[in-house]
Amino acid sequence: MAKPKFELKTPKGTKDWGGQDMVIRDKIFSTITEVFKRHGGVTIDTPVFELRDILAGKYGEDSKLIYDLADQGGEICSLRYDLTVPFARFLAMNKDIQNIKRYHIAKVYRRDQPAMTKGRMREFYQCDFDVAGTYDPMLPDAEIIRIICEVFEGLGWNKTYTIKLNHRKILDGIFQVCGVPEDKIRTISSAVDKLDKLPWADVRKEMTEEKGLDGEVADRIGEWVVLKGQNDLLERLRSDEKLSANEFMKQGMTDLGLLFEYLEAFNVLDRVSFDLSLARGLDYYTGIIYEVVTEGSAPSTTPSAEQAEAPKPAKKKKGKGPDAEDDDRSNDPTVGVGSVAAGGRYDNLVGMFSGKTQIPCVGISFGVDRIFSITKARMAAATSTSLVRNNEVDVYVMAFGGKGFLKERMAICAQLWEAGIKAEFLYKIKPKVPAQFKAAEVNGVPFAIFLGDDEVAAGKVKVKEMGLQEGHPEKEGILVDLKDMVAEVKVRLERKKQLDQVTSQAEGLKVVDGIKAEETTPETPAPAS
Amino acid sequence: MAKPKFELKTPKGTKDWGGQDMVIRDKIFSTITEVFKRHGGVTIDTPVFELRDILAGKYGEDSKLIYDLADQGGEICSLRYDLTVPFARFLAMNKDIQNIKRYHIAKVYRRDQPAMTKGRMREFYQCDFDVAGTYDPMLPDAEIIRIICEVFEGLGWNKTYTIKLNHRKILDGIFQVCGVPEDKIRTISSAVDKLDKLPWADVRKEMTEEKGLDGEVADRIGEWVVLKGQNDLLERLRSDEKLSANEFMKQGMTDLGLLFEYLEAFNVLDRVSFDLSLARGLDYYTGIIYEVVTEGSAPSTTPSAEQAEAPKPAKKKKGKGPDAEDDDRSNDPTVGVGSVAAGGRYDNLVGMFSGKTQIPCVGISFGVDRIFSITKARMAAATSTSLVRNNEVDVYVMAFGGKGFLKERMAICAQLWEAGIKAEFLYKIKPKVPAQFKAAEVNGVPFAIFLGDDEVAAGKVKVKEMGLQEGHPEKEGILVDLKDMVAEVKVRLERKKQLDQVTSQAEGLKVVDGIKAEETTPETPAPAS
Repeated sequence: MAKPKFELKTPKGTKDWGGQDMVIRDKIFSTITEVFKRHGGVTIDTPVFELRDILAGKYGEDSKLIYDLADQGGEICSLRYDLTVPFARFLAMNKDIQNIKRYHIAKVYRRDQPAMTKGRMREFYQCDFDVAGTYDPMLPDAEIIRIICEVFEGLGWNKTYTIKLNHRKILDGIFQVCGVPEDKIRTISSAVDKLDKLPWADVRKEMTEEKGLDGEVADRIGEWVVLKGQNDLLERLRSDEKLSANEFMKQGMTDLGLLFEYLEAFNVLDRVSFDLSLARGLDYYTGIIYEVVTEGSAPSTTPSAEQAEAPKPAKKKKGKGPDAEDDDRSNDPTVGVGSVAAGGRYDNLVGMFSGKTQIPCVGISFGVDRIFSITKARMAAATSTSLVRNNEVDVYVMAFGGKGFLKERMAICAQLWEAGIKAEFLYKIKPKVPAQFKAAEVNGVPFAIFLGDDEVAAGKVKVKEMGLQEGHPEKEGILVDLKDMVAEVKVRLERKKQLDQVTSQAEGLKVVDGIKAEETTPETPAPAS
Repeated sequence: MAKPKFELKTPKGTKDWGGQDMVIRDKIFSTITEVFKRHGGVTIDTPVFELRDILAGKYGEDSKLIYDLADQGGEICSLRYDLTVPFARFLAMNKDIQNIKRYHIAKVYRRDQPAMTKGRMREFYQCDFDVAGTYDPMLPDAEIIRIICEVFEGLGWNKTYTIKLNHRKILDGIFQVCGVPEDKIRTISSAVDKLDKLPWADVRKEMTEEKGLDGEVADRIGEWVVLKGQNDLLERLRSDEKLSANEFMKQGMTDLGLLFEYLEAFNVLDRVSFDLSLARGLDYYTGIIYEVVTEGSAPSTTPSAEQAEAPKPAKKKKGKGPDAEDDDRSNDPTVGVGSVAAGGRYDNLVGMFSGKTQIPCVGISFGVDRIFSITKARMAAATSTSLVRNNEVDVYVMAFGGKGFLKERMAICAQLWEAGIKAEFLYKIKPKVPAQFKAAEVNGVPFAIFLGDDEVAAGKVKVKEMGLQEGHPEKEGILVDLKDMVAEVKVRLERKKQLDQVTSQAEGLKVVDGIKAEETTPETPAPAS
């Protein structure tokens, strides 16, 4: 057959998922889904493409990243850019739904220049949870923060993450008080948003030289936007006479005061950093905004909370610029992936579609591909190889001797399947014994059933746990009547499952729920992953 | 706010999924996934779009239905049309994978004229399971048939489906022996494939008048393609001297003989109808082909197995043509949705990409949207309303009296969430009691926790099972120390879960695993769905 003339690849910025990566990613999905359901979440599914008009005017200058479908006659459509705008469109169309806690796990599309080693792709998954409805202030907002914490604790991140949090109205208030002209507030806001990647001096330069802001105004902004804290920072804002007189500031400070109280009741206040440099690009946010960063995921040149007390904004630049830093650490996939989750309150988006009915919303979007990259890098970096099974088969059914016993193996599999037990056999009429063992071992199948002349003649099978040590009394398997086989296998599977749980807990192993990492013995070094 | 100028809708042939439909569809997915894993399946994920060259030349005249992405600079891409071609491309790219049982559940895209009431859409889900690898003949093929049966039994269809089965080489052999010229075999094959929708007379007309086949040749074909059976039909083919001398026929008959043996060992032979009218449109099939139909899903004008014994092909036309029939029953969503699953063996597709390495494959694709339509229609048609909960919340935490006890409710929820218990509270500082009850009841939440002045003062809560009859000793709930709350709730949830299972089994209720249908009392008629 002639070699095909086209290149054999997936489109730029996309990839196939398979093998252990897929297993790990599925575990991440199920951990996240479990948390979403624990909070009463229900899921919806929307089309992968929308009428182009629906997406228009929602993403600012990022609109150029939208994938369009070809005009093949009929409607003009584009691939979805996120799950938030389709959700707002869904709410506007379904007027009977006035409140909902909805989650949605699906792919979104952005024609970005991908940096694939850093986990950024053109096709990638988002896991969104949003609360829509009119409620008392900050209650859904507080639950979203709690959900973020439960997701990362569920993933075993054990407090190695920070929720950076700010409020659009506080930012706008600061800009007003510092003297930013009304028509420059949005563009100055997006300059501030770069403080997680650029030193203050660069951001100040962008404000003054590129965006024409008065230098003194910029300096006044610079005194505030480098600050971080919690109630202490809120207190500091309140004690500033000019700021506390501003109407936006008042609303934002009331919100955050309530939020901090509620986060304490939810026992997650320590996870939150009130960070005045966080601005978030999207136009539709109206209240609190937040971004989750983890160790190394967003190298910051802004000072820490302690250093921030007496900032000297113009002198923050380090010896190395952020690009150099990026280059130095470009082989570490956990560096520079940006935030691993982000969101905020958007009270006006539904109204942009419905034309009248507003439904206030607040939500969070988890970047699963980034979370995956970090999870995998941590598994590889630990002094352990990961034992991630490709499939979940419980029992491998094998024949011994020259007869192959094909139909007997098939009938035994049918019996096991009937009982819900996951089973395989080798697709050979007369399989060789080593080939059968290899097929079982490559997937870490825990049990085997052996069939030989003696067993078949006696109406029995041998049930054997794989990997038992030499000298173990059941090393050669135990003989069981065919009629008792299913019950025997079920008992042993249940026993093994409980034993594995105990072992995992005793060893304190928890990388991703259900995936157990095992210590490497010195003789078998971890393979490069 | 001004009314937006664009139409608020999803693109043609697409829809949103939410509410109970989403719950039912998710249950269908999990039933199917469970079966796939039981047979050692592992999943992969491929991009929603492929380079256009990958899809070119795979779908015959249906290629016009492919969705193209706009050319925005860079690569030329199209949305995937099925999951089979991307799977073959995946195998060709990953040369280390020589065998795999892979499943893939994802959306595919076809610019068809949709008949949405019949469950046909432009964006729809497929659930595929394929076995790739070089094995002894017909073993993976037999397991695929077994998987089909386990899926539909798992969905509770209880043998109300038939797997129509044929073999490409038997069809080709019959065409050769009957005298179809080599260059007409494919087009005559696709005429035969219409026998599930058209009477023989119409198909014969297409063969002779449209496609220029000799009338006598058509009549000879007509004697065979209306036949159905199992080993009996295979015997009849074998006993025909001309047919049994044909090389294609020999290969096909050997395959089917083996297959029927294996299906007997797997205990599913009774589900299969060897049907010589089944041809399947796609070019890439090389061995057995099959399609699953259910009661009414594919109205057939071909005779039943018994009637088929002595066919008079030219007289099969009924008084009503199939179009009229379609109109008559257009309100029944189970009619005319076509097959609910289909597939076959394709041994040459991977080689079309790799250029040399062939990997033989056999697989099945479940049409979930059609399965969903039928499942839902059956639920509505039964004398029962379905009790499908929208969310899975276990406990609703409520305040009594005027104080609201907001932070106490929040702290209790945090405790429940910490223990993995699904819990909600009303997002109000001082919620009214009826509003809290309504929020719990609308989702069928089974338990409530009450907080009033007395409980809070005593460090206790009331745990109440919802919906208990008047006079039940625990109708008002039981008082529990706050520190024992989680343990108490866990015990009661477990007890209720087991009780519900027993009740469901006793009532013989199984619509979809995990979804319980309850009898309607005469006072509350089932709402139209």
